[in-house]
Amino acid sequence: MSHWYCDGVSIDSIPIDDRAIHYGDGLFETIAIRDGEPRLWSLHLNRLREGCHRLGIGLPDEEVLYDGIIAALHDASVDPFYALAKLIITAGSAPRGYARPERLRSRVLTGVFIAQPQPQENYRSGVETIRCRTTIAAQPALAGIKTLGRLEQVLARNEWQNSNVFEGLMCDADGLLICGTMSNVFVVHDQSISTPVLDQSGVAGVMRQHVLNTLRADGGGIIEKNISWDDARSADEVFLTNSQFGVMPMRQCGERQWHVGPVTGHVMNLVAQNGIEECGS
Amino acid sequence: MSHWYCDGVSIDSIPIDDRAIHYGDGLFETIAIRDGEPRLWSLHLNRLREGCHRLGIGLPDEEVLYDGIIAALHDASVDPFYALAKLIITAGSAPRGYARPERLRSRVLTGVFIAQPQPQENYRSGVETIRCRTTIAAQPALAGIKTLGRLEQVLARNEWQNSNVFEGLMCDADGLLICGTMSNVFVVHDQSISTPVLDQSGVAGVMRQHVLNTLRADGGGIIEKNISWDDARSADEVFLTNSQFGVMPMRQCGERQWHVGPVTGHVMNLVAQNGIEECGS
Repeated sequence: MSHWYCDGVSIDSIPIDDRAIHYGDGLFETIAIRDGEPRLWSLHLNRLREGCHRLGIGLPDEEVLYDGIIAALHDASVDPFYALAKLIITAGSAPRGYARPERLRSRVLTGVFIAQPQPQENYRSGVETIRCRTTIAAQPALAGIKTLGRLEQVLARNEWQNSNVFEGLMCDADGLLICGTMSNVFVVHDQSISTPVLDQSGVAGVMRQHVLNTLRADGGGIIEKNISWDDARSADEVFLTNSQFGVMPMRQCGERQWHVGPVTGHVMNLVAQNGIEECGS
Repeated sequence: MSHWYCDGVSIDSIPIDDRAIHYGDGLFETIAIRDGEPRLWSLHLNRLREGCHRLGIGLPDEEVLYDGIIAALHDASVDPFYALAKLIITAGSAPRGYARPERLRSRVLTGVFIAQPQPQENYRSGVETIRCRTTIAAQPALAGIKTLGRLEQVLARNEWQNSNVFEGLMCDADGLLICGTMSNVFVVHDQSISTPVLDQSGVAGVMRQHVLNTLRADGGGIIEKNISWDDARSADEVFLTNSQFGVMPMRQCGERQWHVGPVTGHVMNLVAQNGIEECGS
């Protein structure tokens, strides 16, 4: 079940001249709703702000965005204790052509969805992944932000149908690990945690940022760097992050298997104490 | 003025759950209508077929696509003597998530537009271009086809507002010339014509293909190869191709200027004799 709103009005369609349809000209955020509040809201706003700046799209009033989510949850009778909101900002309606008219009014779409928690087993024992054949292209102008152009993720996600596979990992053309189709990846070598630098490609997830912030506040070292596929395979532990599920251990990728290790457990406990309750044991 | 149709019905919006909006999950063609017919129709279909194959989208019945354009022109009272049609094939409506449900029904959107011929002066004296700062990413999985994810072109096109600039040229991260934001590029060195190979990035335009086919049928040599920016700058002649305007000489890019040369004139005459009448002198 889903419900969508625009300017406070329930909608089931968008105008055919919206640039999201024609060019993927826009951004989105997928936001966990917990206890009636958008979780990690300021991190979502930061990424949206950066995305609007890079694409040259006017950032809508931030309070209006927030209020729109709360109103949508209420109007759609979606239980705000545990839900999901999707916020889409499009460049707006315009005549045909790549050139954006001046003073284009961006369009805000707010969707609210019923959400299901992950099985506890996934947090305890970890999840299975594959390496996707689809690579992720280097494009610094779009790296890190979450645009509506997501065909690489679509192609990668459609490489598998096996429902035991939780996620697919994606590398760039040079074989550097970048991210999962819907998650970010962290690897642990000798107690030291690192995650791919995302200045050339990939989406810089809000949960990734929350983990970075939380570990740094805890005094722990954590490094953003280039991580080759072989580096990742040789890691002692690997975990995934995503705004909905928080931190999730990885127990398998293809033939390679891992146990859920102490560093991953420590990270999960830390973030559980810092707002991401489902990661607590 | 524009008119859009889906399944033979006039529409002004599309369903909010269409994957075109959320992920750019679809393809499009921009088709010149001349004398009541979609021009270079078989080349448009070839590219659409290739795009559907690569993305894993069901190709709609080709006669239905054709008939939809003709019916739209008639219904919208757009003069079919000289017009433009835009065909969008989306992956269709689906629940949230990158994974496509099985047996998804693709959605066909047909738009018809009044079109204006280019000024004769552009064909006679050539057009002015700039080199865009926005690069075009290498992604073999999407190279050549015309997906709905066109943010690189949007960013590049919005680098200039000067209406004297007709087009912006785009290079990849290695400085190889790839294409214009809405056109393909050909360069001439010592009477020899070449155009960038598009197996890593760029859109393989139908007019580019028509020029390749026409020149080869004429017995002329033409080469698809890597062309560096410096190669292009040092060319004796440069011209652009696009489904709407055909073949257009380039007279300037930044500081570099060209005269409209004999090879470009020959190509324009050849294609004018081969269905692209506006290129005739």
